[in-house]
Amino acid sequence: MNDKLKLSETRIRGEVLFEGRMLRLERDIVRLPNGAEASREVIRHPGAVAIIALQDQEVLLVRQYRYAIGRETLEIPAGKIDPQESPLSCAVRELREETGYSGVMELIGTFYTTPGFTDEVMHIFLARDLVWDPLETDDDEFLAVEKIPWNEALRRAQQNEFIDAKTILGILLVQGKI
Amino acid sequence: MNDKLKLSETRIRGEVLFEGRMLRLERDIVRLPNGAEASREVIRHPGAVAIIALQDQEVLLVRQYRYAIGRETLEIPAGKIDPQESPLSCAVRELREETGYSGVMELIGTFYTTPGFTDEVMHIFLARDLVWDPLETDDDEFLAVEKIPWNEALRRAQQNEFIDAKTILGILLVQGKI
Repeated sequence: MNDKLKLSETRIRGEVLFEGRMLRLERDIVRLPNGAEASREVIRHPGAVAIIALQDQEVLLVRQYRYAIGRETLEIPAGKIDPQESPLSCAVRELREETGYSGVMELIGTFYTTPGFTDEVMHIFLARDLVWDPLETDDDEFLAVEKIPWNEALRRAQQNEFIDAKTILGILLVQGKI
Repeated sequence: MNDKLKLSETRIRGEVLFEGRMLRLERDIVRLPNGAEASREVIRHPGAVAIIALQDQEVLLVRQYRYAIGRETLEIPAGKIDPQESPLSCAVRELREETGYSGVMELIGTFYTTPGFTDEVMHIFLARDLVWDPLETDDDEFLAVEKIPWNEALRRAQQNEFIDAKTILGILLVQGKI
């Protein structure tokens, strides 16, 4: 409750523990507000986009296997931002790769996915006025496109029938805008 | 669009690259649906809870420094699940530690935070009928509690003025339930 409370932590030293295809893991030693030292494990991530793509009152979803959680999911189209790519360009590319469509994009929200351990930022776009304009998908990505009515998507989001944060959040954020 | 499309990936072999205080990083070699091999980097996480705590039409928020993103945030109370702890027990403990209150807990949603690279599951609870019942906080955690009116929290969530997924999502999910 004290406005003057100093909360920030400053880096003393650090090391890169792993640099992979997708993630970089760093461990830093930091100075806490009380002067003590602590270690912080951080996953550095290039950022990502996800797209609510609407066509004739339906929303495009992708069914895919998520190895990290060991199961199939039904999610809004999404993907990692490439080096030097803007979030908007990434959204256009990912929607074409995953669904075959291009659309008029509107940014509806930007947030950190889980700021306790990663700097991953997610940008959510709304895509409308879709036209068929396919791009080849990544060669290690296997997915199936499904369409469901917008009202059904909204009901599923409100009732926690989708299982990943960005899909639920994207649908609930778009709700107020269409 | 093919219901018969086989999407799952099967583990061939793997290694633990890092086991830290909070995260375990694994890299597995997997068999893709087309028979090819690919590598998958996965962060294993114990899971977490977050709590929408309501008192007299106000919601309790915590201001804290998030080292991974290098900035202060205003979030709903949250924390990692300890070994052998249930999500409900964790929610009760974290709310007491971070705000000093106990409340009647109701689970309102469970989702994966970012299933592209981690198995982190987040359980969101709604806490009402709060009573003062403090527990000591973790000794490397520094935070300040703030209260804002529920309608103001809802407006900020809808307008993307909060910056982390669980805070926005928790508020939007609770919206339909109170």
